[in-house]
Amino acid sequence: VRVERGFWHDRIVINRHVTIPALLERLREHHVLDNFRRLYGAVDRPRERRLATDSDLYKWLEGACYAIANEPDAELKGMIDGVIDVILPAQEESGYLNTAMVEENRARRWQDFHAHELYCAGHLFQAAVAHHRATGEGRLLATAIKLAAHLWELFGPGKREWHPGHPEAELALVELYRESRDRRYLDLAGLFLKRCVTRDPDEIWGHAVRALYYDSGAADYVAETGDEGLRRLVEAHWRTLTSGKMYVTGGVGSRHHGECMGPMFDLPNLQAYAETCAAAANVFFNWRMLMLTAQAQFAGILETALYNGFLAGVSLDGRSFFYVNPLACTGRGFPEPWAESVRTPPYQRSEFFATTCCPPNVVRLIASVPGLLYSLSEDGVVLNLYADSALDFTPTHGPRTTLRQSTDYPWDGRVEVEVLPEETVSFCLSIRIPEWTPRARIEVNGIPWDGPARPGCYAALERSWEKGDVVTISFDMPPQFLECDERVTENRNSVALRRGPIVYCFEGKDNPGVDLFDVQADTSAPLEVRPCDPALGNMPAITIAGCAPTRTCGSGALYRPLGNAPRLARRDVTLMAIPYYAWANRGPSQMTVWALRKSST
Amino acid sequence: VRVERGFWHDRIVINRHVTIPALLERLREHHVLDNFRRLYGAVDRPRERRLATDSDLYKWLEGACYAIANEPDAELKGMIDGVIDVILPAQEESGYLNTAMVEENRARRWQDFHAHELYCAGHLFQAAVAHHRATGEGRLLATAIKLAAHLWELFGPGKREWHPGHPEAELALVELYRESRDRRYLDLAGLFLKRCVTRDPDEIWGHAVRALYYDSGAADYVAETGDEGLRRLVEAHWRTLTSGKMYVTGGVGSRHHGECMGPMFDLPNLQAYAETCAAAANVFFNWRMLMLTAQAQFAGILETALYNGFLAGVSLDGRSFFYVNPLACTGRGFPEPWAESVRTPPYQRSEFFATTCCPPNVVRLIASVPGLLYSLSEDGVVLNLYADSALDFTPTHGPRTTLRQSTDYPWDGRVEVEVLPEETVSFCLSIRIPEWTPRARIEVNGIPWDGPARPGCYAALERSWEKGDVVTISFDMPPQFLECDERVTENRNSVALRRGPIVYCFEGKDNPGVDLFDVQADTSAPLEVRPCDPALGNMPAITIAGCAPTRTCGSGALYRPLGNAPRLARRDVTLMAIPYYAWANRGPSQMTVWALRKSST
Repeated sequence: VRVERGFWHDRIVINRHVTIPALLERLREHHVLDNFRRLYGAVDRPRERRLATDSDLYKWLEGACYAIANEPDAELKGMIDGVIDVILPAQEESGYLNTAMVEENRARRWQDFHAHELYCAGHLFQAAVAHHRATGEGRLLATAIKLAAHLWELFGPGKREWHPGHPEAELALVELYRESRDRRYLDLAGLFLKRCVTRDPDEIWGHAVRALYYDSGAADYVAETGDEGLRRLVEAHWRTLTSGKMYVTGGVGSRHHGECMGPMFDLPNLQAYAETCAAAANVFFNWRMLMLTAQAQFAGILETALYNGFLAGVSLDGRSFFYVNPLACTGRGFPEPWAESVRTPPYQRSEFFATTCCPPNVVRLIASVPGLLYSLSEDGVVLNLYADSALDFTPTHGPRTTLRQSTDYPWDGRVEVEVLPEETVSFCLSIRIPEWTPRARIEVNGIPWDGPARPGCYAALERSWEKGDVVTISFDMPPQFLECDERVTENRNSVALRRGPIVYCFEGKDNPGVDLFDVQADTSAPLEVRPCDPALGNMPAITIAGCAPTRTCGSGALYRPLGNAPRLARRDVTLMAIPYYAWANRGPSQMTVWALRKSST
Repeated sequence: VRVERGFWHDRIVINRHVTIPALLERLREHHVLDNFRRLYGAVDRPRERRLATDSDLYKWLEGACYAIANEPDAELKGMIDGVIDVILPAQEESGYLNTAMVEENRARRWQDFHAHELYCAGHLFQAAVAHHRATGEGRLLATAIKLAAHLWELFGPGKREWHPGHPEAELALVELYRESRDRRYLDLAGLFLKRCVTRDPDEIWGHAVRALYYDSGAADYVAETGDEGLRRLVEAHWRTLTSGKMYVTGGVGSRHHGECMGPMFDLPNLQAYAETCAAAANVFFNWRMLMLTAQAQFAGILETALYNGFLAGVSLDGRSFFYVNPLACTGRGFPEPWAESVRTPPYQRSEFFATTCCPPNVVRLIASVPGLLYSLSEDGVVLNLYADSALDFTPTHGPRTTLRQSTDYPWDGRVEVEVLPEETVSFCLSIRIPEWTPRARIEVNGIPWDGPARPGCYAALERSWEKGDVVTISFDMPPQFLECDERVTENRNSVALRRGPIVYCFEGKDNPGVDLFDVQADTSAPLEVRPCDPALGNMPAITIAGCAPTRTCGSGALYRPLGNAPRLARRDVTLMAIPYYAWANRGPSQMTVWALRKSST
């Protein structure tokens, strides 16, 4: 897949040329590489930082490998080689590889579920698989396999009943199995999944990233084995996630404490946690469910999480990151110094974090986007996501074929797909009709296609394709007000804005003089699409009519008998909304995704 | 003041006969007393538990002293003497007294703002003042003064610029000054208050208990000195607290993280922290503001916090406590074992906590309620709170006088006050007209009083009183729906119920088969007062009409285009609400204070 212009091309270029080198520099400065070097005497200094930091480097490496798979790049290949050179000598003869559980901590190996040893191992496996696929080189994969074989010896069937405290190794072992075809790693993934008996089979709960990494591994395992118990579990988890535990942005995790999901419908906006990694994990999980089932609903959630909850985690310039992605923000921090230790909802992005899991997840997920656009089925090819791109593939028993997709998606709903087989070929071109479009039209060479094209499904164009055939897909993409299930108390009587896959928010910078927590959206007035603040580039904004109550400070009690609301003077205002992912790129400011509806009285 | 029957009498009896002895037993079991004994060789064991546990014993002692001040009690006096016998020998020759900063921790004295050394000292001062007032004995007061003199030497004018990390010593030093008339302690309180430069003078912020203890000390200091800067600060803090940072229950602190207040209007229900100590601190702060200003608005907030946010912190039987007081509860905990370390909103009370500050705050505040009912002014006496009770006092230049107040308040709005001076006397009887009453009538000896009696003010009955004069006060006390400022997003389009000072909630036990998070209150139908579940005693419940949408699992998306809400079948239900303070006395159950309003369509 080549992505040579358009929305994702721009992000991939920034990821490659800004985020990837800057993050490696941060990891270097914070001694994440030295933690490996010191083990073989290349530096003489104590280990630095938290237990799981090896995984941050592995995730960077995985992302860098996706980047060179997208586009050959000698400079980046050199950086990758350098990092691998740092990692490899740190592996012990047994296969064990972890920079924390050494020396005086050696006795703590495999003692603490929360020491992230299997978590780090899993990220090494993913990096190794990505490296092998991108370069064909085997040295990192050999290291991974040596560690995996060590894990099999320690924790395989009949051995010690250990499993990950923080899931990740499960999905990574399935990927390692796919790359190595060594069945032991699939079996070990299954053992890890089944030994974790604390997962509620009926409802997704707990730490958002852990839960979604677990479910990703479980979906992978089901795809390989057909395991029915885990299939029911991932289906129930997906259902409860999407019907009661997911923000409209695809963000997950409503609680700072424990980085947890709350009970059903507990989705506070200002206090949302919605870790960037959890939105990424939501993409990973839905991708695996999509591969397992070929149902478009999973691609729909994936797309929402990717464009909104996840993409908000990195600044437009690629330099700084959010760990926490609230759906509303006062634009102020807490003034008390003692509260600095408290993870308050952020109002500005940072270049690095004490636990810096999110930035390398940004690197690897953005670099892997080209791999999400298409998938292959037995009878053809599937368009999952729309992006200006080209796919080279070979249909079953067919000739080499190129699909060339031209579009300004996500800003425009028109997509043109040119089909370029080397010779005439029959296959099914499956086209995802997004669930948000009120109307989709498909034409083949200018002639309307009369098959079913229902939102939230795939349209299946089964035909004989000739070189130069053009499929034109037009999704109506009007800006829409969304409402939320009333059981989410914070969103009652409120609306959010969406256009296509993009969820919008109101930010103070575009609405000067308006208190965004005290404004009402007139949902009977038209929504208009206009250009954004040029500082945010060429993305479209949405303007709506609303009103701002004119309050005098202290007027009206916080609580009062029903019907005794003071008659507030109101002034009409025009409110401008920008894509949620673009907030917090112009300094501290108020922000809200949900706005109160103007009452009809 | 004698409280011999009625609401507070019942609570004071349970406090005395259940809570006070049980909590002392818990403190004993958890070695809080041994922490003192070990310092002089009476036990040979290491120190146990957290840094601030000395304060838990001091607060118990303070409460026990209030209890014997209310009613002589040889058994409890014996327990008090025993505890004091344990404490006193632990004081060092210098005056220093703290069980944590000894031996290997001696070098840490006065090094860490968060070590709670001044916090513990403050609670000792309060206990000593209470003990001296209750018994006239001087030995605990002498210990406190010796420690206070030591603090003066260390931190007085021109000395080291130390101040409390957790405020408490400030208010306690003012009380110690009032008891000892030693001006140094007032000055030291002022130094501590002014050295704490991190307080925002315009808005209350941060850790709820710390902020409110600080403000209590500041209000005390202003009362003694007239300091204008601190007066403006406490006024601004009270205004922002009550107009944007306080729950309808008088609870304070919307965030688990850091036990903090959030920004204005950040008041989530399910995730509310609303620590029992913070509601107690809200009572303390408003009491001091009332004493400073004689304005009824402070008594109103005090009463709300006392009957609701605070009183919910202890079970009806006096045996178990809430630390966290959410305004909604699913009735379920979190299933993941690793999340046990997370302070999730509780659904059942506990007998003790790792940090057990709340239970002794329950003990001391309930025992001190008689002292809140009345206050004396230069020209007479003030009724702040209504409770069946008798006050003996001596008006300025007047004879000994008794006021006998008969009432079933808070369940009934009729209050009869018999005035019993030894001989005819003129004074002003000030009567607080609660802000929630739509109508108050006052009669003197059956004749309507024609002075102003406005809700939220004091009515001033200035006259000559003869023995047997009877003042009858009748407050209309209809059950009322309350609404909330729309800027509190979670409460939009929702109502709460109040009757008199009592805030109500819906609990699952009284509403079987109804999902309280998915129910709508019909605010156009009448509210009815009925008897509660007998298991809760004789308190009145409120019933309202409502409807419960009949949902089939999975129907309707979490987010959907506006106007596409599925037409849900609804069934009419009668909803029963009980006093909020009485929730969670019948096992785990759903609970909510705020209920969605039934839409008119």
